[in-house]
Amino acid sequence: MAEPEEIIEPDDDAYAIDRGTMREVRDAVEAEDRDALLLAMEPMHPADVADLLEQLDEGPRHRLIALLGHDFDGEILSELDEGLREDVIEALSPAVLTEAVRGLNSDDVVDLLETLETPQQETILQALERPDRIAIERAMSFPEGSAGRLMQREVVTAPEHWTVGDAIDFMRASLDLPEQFYHIVLVDPRYQPIGQVTLGRVMSSDRVTKLKDLTEDSYRTIPATQDEEDVAYAFNQYHLISAPVVDDDGRLVGVITIDDAMIVLSQQNEEDLLLLAGVGDESIADRTLQIVRQRFPWLLVNLGTAILASMVIAQFEDVLAAIVALAVLMPIVASMGGNAGTQSMAVAVRALATRDLTGSNAWRVVRREVMAGFLNGAVFAIIIGIVGMIWFGNPMLGVVIAMAMIINLVVAGLAGVLLPILLDKAGVDPALASGTFVTTVTDVVGFFAFLGLAGLILL
Amino acid sequence: MAEPEEIIEPDDDAYAIDRGTMREVRDAVEAEDRDALLLAMEPMHPADVADLLEQLDEGPRHRLIALLGHDFDGEILSELDEGLREDVIEALSPAVLTEAVRGLNSDDVVDLLETLETPQQETILQALERPDRIAIERAMSFPEGSAGRLMQREVVTAPEHWTVGDAIDFMRASLDLPEQFYHIVLVDPRYQPIGQVTLGRVMSSDRVTKLKDLTEDSYRTIPATQDEEDVAYAFNQYHLISAPVVDDDGRLVGVITIDDAMIVLSQQNEEDLLLLAGVGDESIADRTLQIVRQRFPWLLVNLGTAILASMVIAQFEDVLAAIVALAVLMPIVASMGGNAGTQSMAVAVRALATRDLTGSNAWRVVRREVMAGFLNGAVFAIIIGIVGMIWFGNPMLGVVIAMAMIINLVVAGLAGVLLPILLDKAGVDPALASGTFVTTVTDVVGFFAFLGLAGLILL
Repeated sequence: MAEPEEIIEPDDDAYAIDRGTMREVRDAVEAEDRDALLLAMEPMHPADVADLLEQLDEGPRHRLIALLGHDFDGEILSELDEGLREDVIEALSPAVLTEAVRGLNSDDVVDLLETLETPQQETILQALERPDRIAIERAMSFPEGSAGRLMQREVVTAPEHWTVGDAIDFMRASLDLPEQFYHIVLVDPRYQPIGQVTLGRVMSSDRVTKLKDLTEDSYRTIPATQDEEDVAYAFNQYHLISAPVVDDDGRLVGVITIDDAMIVLSQQNEEDLLLLAGVGDESIADRTLQIVRQRFPWLLVNLGTAILASMVIAQFEDVLAAIVALAVLMPIVASMGGNAGTQSMAVAVRALATRDLTGSNAWRVVRREVMAGFLNGAVFAIIIGIVGMIWFGNPMLGVVIAMAMIINLVVAGLAGVLLPILLDKAGVDPALASGTFVTTVTDVVGFFAFLGLAGLILL
Repeated sequence: MAEPEEIIEPDDDAYAIDRGTMREVRDAVEAEDRDALLLAMEPMHPADVADLLEQLDEGPRHRLIALLGHDFDGEILSELDEGLREDVIEALSPAVLTEAVRGLNSDDVVDLLETLETPQQETILQALERPDRIAIERAMSFPEGSAGRLMQREVVTAPEHWTVGDAIDFMRASLDLPEQFYHIVLVDPRYQPIGQVTLGRVMSSDRVTKLKDLTEDSYRTIPATQDEEDVAYAFNQYHLISAPVVDDDGRLVGVITIDDAMIVLSQQNEEDLLLLAGVGDESIADRTLQIVRQRFPWLLVNLGTAILASMVIAQFEDVLAAIVALAVLMPIVASMGGNAGTQSMAVAVRALATRDLTGSNAWRVVRREVMAGFLNGAVFAIIIGIVGMIWFGNPMLGVVIAMAMIINLVVAGLAGVLLPILLDKAGVDPALASGTFVTTVTDVVGFFAFLGLAGLILL
């Protein structure tokens, strides 16, 4: 078991919306009291308002939005769970929607558009002013899930020959600097970035210092077509704060900041976790029918594999008819295999995601999993062998279940690590090697080994 | 199934160490060719070197470290997997270790110390200069996993009455500014932070502007004793870049930056994923005996629960002896329940981690899971009922398995969501509601419902 100090988190709800606020909001909505609503929501960050909307039922949610009126902040839309955006946008009046969308950064608008159906995309695009609309349409021309979609177009650049003084004067004179920026990107005459300087270094240097002499070592550019998950990995691996994005000709087209990368990272982790558990892109805000539809295909696959395992058992009906004790013990071997397989699979999937499992150590990892399966298998073989012997008073039954246990735990280790590696090699998300597939292998092998050995040895 | 475009990731190895470099490194280590080694490793970030060390076997790893000598960068230690740090530190000569540790930021040294045993902690502390040692010991006095351990002590502050000009002059005159910083923290005479100004705003404002007029809206302080997972949540939720850390008296003691928060977030996600799969804190670099020891307790718990399920089956030995077909179909009901339970559990665990599942919507979510279990249960009841009927030519057998399926999927939905919620309420990590516990419930209920109904209806 994990260490106790890792498990206890007394402070776990530090940033959750507290019940008091929640009640105030509900009461204000019920009473249609706009002032009380604004008062209760006043200290809330748009991200918290989004959480609030996700936690309300549809009726109160729509009444709250209507009551808020023009105080609906556009950023709430960006923070909102993807499954709920459509619903909330439909509840907004056209005037409120226009105002909300115009207040957003280009990358947030792109993110919003990506999750909407065409008619709603049109509504949003129409709400924008012409130059913004064109910029957004250009960003949307990059592939979905690429760095080009993730970046913001607002970048602070300086010619490579500028000094600290030039940069400060330029910034003082600029009227539309981005709200948040951390670097000045140096560009050559062809607008290709050649380095970047952190604002901290600019501020702590003399006016005559050349920006070129202050550039950061850890500087990296990101291709606009790169997968956003690779972008998130690079930010996490190299501790980047912001990085320039370049097109195929190496020209600067935008910048990605770490907060966007952090969102991608956390979405990707969510996806992996849900995928491993056999759920697609689901959220706690989804409605019953949505989750039924979402989970049905996975359960259908599982039904297929469960029937497969049953067909293996069916081959041994005569053995089972002769010794009913086998039916009692049979699930133990399968369950242990499923559990062990899930363990190696989770470690492998995670290691693939963090690039810690690669071609150069794959065989070592596979060998190690097989060895670990064998060792744990041997220990549990002894335990379950003794249990079986005592429970049913049949020593050979103990031997059979012990042998089946070793076989199944070795197979579990092998399947748990090989399935994700092979899926990854085939260009498929290794998290798809979800419980279902690994446990199919361990169920089939578990039943076959146990009942087969029983047929050979006990009959 | 998930949409195909989400699954295909052709560019997945964008930042993995390529085989060519790996071979060069191996060859250089084999040939003890220091120059070739330095050449091959020259473009590598310390994080990549850490990955490299993790992928090598113990022998080559130690030879590489010896060959590197004084070119061993201290940051490699911070980037290294926790399970491997001890091994690498032992392989370093005292002179190299001293040099490596002195180059690190205070937060990185703290992180390093946390993962080491006392004798190695002493070695590291002795390697530091006295003032650094005292600072580190002070940081170590905060609880493990708290903001106080995560923060760096190096902060750029300004008195609240300063102007932009004052700040720039001060920074130009400072010799030991932090390597990376994004804000100036304004403090009152008692050294309590009252706001912060981004460097971007400082740079774009006139020298006479008061810093107080430029403070950020989204400003938040973090208590030094706050759990690091809550810190990571706050950074992700409120898109913070850096935040001042305060002690119990509200006095500034340090600053946490988003890159540290991102590391915590990704560690936490890794922990959740592994915990759900019944693995503790394991890594791909662990040795066989480590992973055997790590996984054994979970498998032991699973053995206990599997035997429990077997004891349920044993109650129905006479029913099984009468109708062997029951033994064949029995695992299907249990497997479907386990799968459905894992689905609801994963969604619930994730929603608890992101504070989207709280007291205010818990009952709605539970009701929804039960409804979803019933609806999917009904559909699969029809399918499996027909399969059972046709396969064994016994209509009543079909009715029995159909009824058991509905019961088990409803229970699965309920257990999958209730177990994590109850664990969370009890102050335990809900991810502990791993497959093992939910599937115990669905196995027991599945076998009991199916065999019990069979006994009532078919005998």
